Amino acid sequence: MKIAVLLYDQLTALDAVGPYEVLSRVPGAEVVFTAARPGPVRTDMGSLALTADAGFAEVTDPDVLLVPGGPGCAALLEDGPTLDWIREVDAGTTWTTSVCSGSLLLAAAGLLTGRRATSHWICLDMLEAFGATPVGDERIVVDGTYATSAGVSAGIDLALHLAGLAAGPRVAESIQLVIEYAPEPPYATGSTADAPPEMVEALRASNLIVTG
Amino acid sequence: MKIAVLLYDQLTALDAVGPYEVLSRVPGAEVVFTAARPGPVRTDMGSLALTADAGFAEVTDPDVLLVPGGPGCAALLEDGPTLDWIREVDAGTTWTTSVCSGSLLLAAAGLLTGRRATSHWICLDMLEAFGATPVGDERIVVDGTYATSAGVSAGIDLALHLAGLAAGPRVAESIQLVIEYAPEPPYATGSTADAPPEMVEALRASNLIVTG
Repeated sequence: MKIAVLLYDQLTALDAVGPYEVLSRVPGAEVVFTAARPGPVRTDMGSLALTADAGFAEVTDPDVLLVPGGPGCAALLEDGPTLDWIREVDAGTTWTTSVCSGSLLLAAAGLLTGRRATSHWICLDMLEAFGATPVGDERIVVDGTYATSAGVSAGIDLALHLAGLAAGPRVAESIQLVIEYAPEPPYATGSTADAPPEMVEALRASNLIVTG
Repeated sequence: MKIAVLLYDQLTALDAVGPYEVLSRVPGAEVVFTAARPGPVRTDMGSLALTADAGFAEVTDPDVLLVPGGPGCAALLEDGPTLDWIREVDAGTTWTTSVCSGSLLLAAAGLLTGRRATSHWICLDMLEAFGATPVGDERIVVDGTYATSAGVSAGIDLALHLAGLAAGPRVAESIQLVIEYAPEPPYATGSTADAPPEMVEALRASNLIVTG
């Protein structure tokens, strides 16, 4: 199973690394971090660069495509080379997936037209402009060969779900134990349904997931 | 608040990136990924390099030290430059912290002697050889200025806990909402207490967290 993870300037690091930590542990999986050009890619919070080992031209036939989100996706919504690459590899994937605002790139590439999809809650409504149906109350939304997930940390849940589909539940359960994923969030504010409304609105106004 | 994250060859990526995603969002926080020498550092699963922007000599006075785990830590348990740097910066930190087997490096540096600490469940018992008291049933263990956490994904919980201590619960709650951390693990195997015993023993025998 060949898995391509798209990297681009100003992506959100955990969007890519959470799924990587899970999917790279599926027996036989081969993950390749891919960007327009190989080399280091700076993430949105500024202090970390992730290395793309391959450029678009070298990665043409992954079984799984994972598109992370981050403020940098805004600059790519009309970027020909990125959207072309996404469309090209999507034609051969078993699963085309996204974390957070990464679904906006799938939508901008025309892949989510008429499909149910999710995204980071701050930019969920933007999916509609691309003809997708935003789903706000599901952490992972599967429609056909497309699996989109909610913001940032949701990529870990998405990847465990995909690991189960690809290799069976026993393998996915083992991976969950290896990464000791028995979360104990210290607060009860992880979703807009649980957080205080004024906190939700203040963060929505900042729009930091799309514009940084 | 200056936060140093140690990088070394064959670390586990999520151990470092989970906490980074949280701590970098604390207002005024400045994270610096630090290794013996600056440059790309290859993580344990092979497909991803994280960039260290600074070498040990450039980072002398962080307020927080975070030491991730991974199979690469085994090679550093007697590494003078790494253990010396950990001891030197620890002398000035408000918090010295670890994720997963990173606590073995704190212990090897002599910092956990006589203290309660945790680690990845696979290598938890190794803490005893360094004079620490292993704690297997707490995801985050705080003893004095030392905060150790369980395996891989536990670093996210640790970092939210630290964000609350450093900037107050309201800030930490907002960060939890930004990273949409309302986890929905698809399986119930995230801890040794919940997973089937034969799965626990098979993974324990592999010892992959310490030896790769």
